[in-house]
Amino acid sequence: MTGQKRVLRLALLGCGTVGSEVIRLLHRNGDELAARVGARLEIAGIAVRRLTVDRSDLPVPAELFTDDPMSLIERDDVDVVIEVVGGLEPARDWLLAALKSGKSVVTANKALLAEDGAALQAAAAEGGADLYYEASVAGGIPLLGPLRESLHGDRITRVMGIVNGTTNFILSAMDSTGAGFGEALEEATALGYAEADPTADVEGYDAAAKAAILASLAFHTPVTAADVYREGITEITAADVASARTIGCTVKLLCIAQRQVDADGTESVGVRVHPAMIPRSHPLAGVTGAFNAVFVEADAAGELMFYGRGAGGSPTASAVLGDVVAVARHKLTGVRSASDTSYALLPVRPIGEAITRYHLSLEVADRAGVLAAVASEFATSGVSIRTVKQEGHGDDATLVVVTHAAPDAALSSTVDRLRRLDSVRKVLSVMRVEGET
Amino acid sequence: MTGQKRVLRLALLGCGTVGSEVIRLLHRNGDELAARVGARLEIAGIAVRRLTVDRSDLPVPAELFTDDPMSLIERDDVDVVIEVVGGLEPARDWLLAALKSGKSVVTANKALLAEDGAALQAAAAEGGADLYYEASVAGGIPLLGPLRESLHGDRITRVMGIVNGTTNFILSAMDSTGAGFGEALEEATALGYAEADPTADVEGYDAAAKAAILASLAFHTPVTAADVYREGITEITAADVASARTIGCTVKLLCIAQRQVDADGTESVGVRVHPAMIPRSHPLAGVTGAFNAVFVEADAAGELMFYGRGAGGSPTASAVLGDVVAVARHKLTGVRSASDTSYALLPVRPIGEAITRYHLSLEVADRAGVLAAVASEFATSGVSIRTVKQEGHGDDATLVVVTHAAPDAALSSTVDRLRRLDSVRKVLSVMRVEGET
Repeated sequence: MTGQKRVLRLALLGCGTVGSEVIRLLHRNGDELAARVGARLEIAGIAVRRLTVDRSDLPVPAELFTDDPMSLIERDDVDVVIEVVGGLEPARDWLLAALKSGKSVVTANKALLAEDGAALQAAAAEGGADLYYEASVAGGIPLLGPLRESLHGDRITRVMGIVNGTTNFILSAMDSTGAGFGEALEEATALGYAEADPTADVEGYDAAAKAAILASLAFHTPVTAADVYREGITEITAADVASARTIGCTVKLLCIAQRQVDADGTESVGVRVHPAMIPRSHPLAGVTGAFNAVFVEADAAGELMFYGRGAGGSPTASAVLGDVVAVARHKLTGVRSASDTSYALLPVRPIGEAITRYHLSLEVADRAGVLAAVASEFATSGVSIRTVKQEGHGDDATLVVVTHAAPDAALSSTVDRLRRLDSVRKVLSVMRVEGET
Repeated sequence: MTGQKRVLRLALLGCGTVGSEVIRLLHRNGDELAARVGARLEIAGIAVRRLTVDRSDLPVPAELFTDDPMSLIERDDVDVVIEVVGGLEPARDWLLAALKSGKSVVTANKALLAEDGAALQAAAAEGGADLYYEASVAGGIPLLGPLRESLHGDRITRVMGIVNGTTNFILSAMDSTGAGFGEALEEATALGYAEADPTADVEGYDAAAKAAILASLAFHTPVTAADVYREGITEITAADVASARTIGCTVKLLCIAQRQVDADGTESVGVRVHPAMIPRSHPLAGVTGAFNAVFVEADAAGELMFYGRGAGGSPTASAVLGDVVAVARHKLTGVRSASDTSYALLPVRPIGEAITRYHLSLEVADRAGVLAAVASEFATSGVSIRTVKQEGHGDDATLVVVTHAAPDAALSSTVDRLRRLDSVRKVLSVMRVEGET
């Protein structure tokens, strides 16, 4: 590839919501894109599952459509492959083939990246091709670019984000209306914010895949979805949300990737997805509805936040096009990005070693010595209590405890022991607390 | 420059707060930076005004310091020039010399970029060098990178931001304590958030320079500080802030760069810096104290926000280092960024043609027909009124008017005519309103 080539040709795999919007943006902004890249971007072909679907509303000739993606990828005149199909197979075979043959890849496939990112990176290195995937996390928000380009002179210590719009819509609704999970999920489904089978969203699988991608990039360490501790939001009750409110917090499904440094200087990474209470004054607390936002802490830059639309055809297509322009420029100048690196190879720590805080709400017997018994269980685990508040009395007595930071294993074993105490009738709510209060 | 070169050498111009922090970051993160760049980054020399200052706390040998910046820039073994001195001269001569001789430049110099960005870009093109300036706007927030890299497949329609920490600190204090401008400025000065001579901040000059840089980048059009309409915050009273509160707004000093499209499709750009009321529900309203944030609207990506620390040695040094890594990689691979483009060359429109809304608070005579007289003046200018509210009576009667969107010239001429109305005793407050309400 030399500076003389004035046209770059794209193979588009997939023509659903995102793929159609990529086609429209390429058409509408063709002149501007050509000015920015230094070459015209042309669609060489579009691979679809069924050729019989009517796509006459799209501004491309019908003969570009094909149901043979591999032949399209292998064509000599294709420079860049854009994959917006999703799923592990056959996308994995397509992208490995493209990268190994030196074709740069732009993909929105979070599941594949979170499962097999290292193999894709290796194929990209082998073929001397670029692998870009801005659209895989937080849709239209420029996030991976800044993480790997702008902050590479800095040292990231923590990434904490709201990366799933469906669950954020549900939790926002529960917070503002007092609804329970089931009711809020019904509303989200009715409005199109939740899919018919919402499992991937509400059980945190989607967020866990994104957490793996963010952690890999931020800490230069391969992290897969299987490394990510994951809890969904299906168990969150209206009472949990009300409890959060009484301590000035709101409940969010957070993805957290954190650099941990031991006393001897050994570094490791912890990656987890779970609901947590965060203070209403935290910038992430104001992120409501289907919006996404990612809060980044770096040694020198301090606290940063990136906010925007995390899903939808247009925002995702914007991210895809941004990547296409970047890899197209690299093609023209004959370089590839060297920015995805795994040189750090930090070990990934289990959830038990994560440092967090717990909020507990306990139904207790209203008699002398209950607080002492509860406090003693915390002391045994070396967990110190930050605040404790007793509400009601008689059979309705409730003890609300917020701990100081401690290893998650110590916190959860304390909860187990509290469940066995005679004076604790019921553990009403247990939730982690994140963000400074 | 080839891939064989394993060391890249940096000339650092300036060794104040930012320069010292750049030295410390280069020292502390040396191994990580080398892994990311593919070559070690070495400081070739550090130009300072006075060699006699004690700098023994910095992790560099004393012999690196020089008081002859031009000789340092001209040394054959210098690959990248970092400028953190600021001001127009002699920085302009230094950077033009560096760029023309093919040395890439990383600078935090907003004044120079806003005055002479086009000449610097031309010199960079002539020398085949990179010109990067992430640190010039919004300190440590990765903003210019995303604008020129991640969103280049999209079309930006509006950039609206809080880019000056001093004025945001003052306005936040006025909002939370009810203090007047003078009192809040005193507090900011005492806490080190305002300089002894705060003119550049409180009169909006600093924000106007940043607005010019943002507009140039977002709209691919050369915009200088002189093109930017500018109003500071020195006239803002506690009454203005209280007025904003009654309509659910807070007052912020905003920099706004907007793409305007006429009925015939002709495009232009409007760039302005002025205080404005924005709804408390707007993401920018929650940006308090010395933080910065920039809200970006793009056709496909939708609404985005970038938030973080806008000033300070560490955040600014983080941005400088991010740029250094980028240009260092380009040096190693023998390419330069082609991303700063002025191909659009859109005309810059005067403030009179900006589309905005006004909030007015008028002291009026409490007699029949006042509202009709006021409304008639708006109608004459073709401005429609969104809400009007009469408060008090007798000599204390106040009329609060919020308009619909209209050209600024029509709005301001209406205000002029209202001042001359018999029934309007005094125009108590006039302020623009931005953001959806």
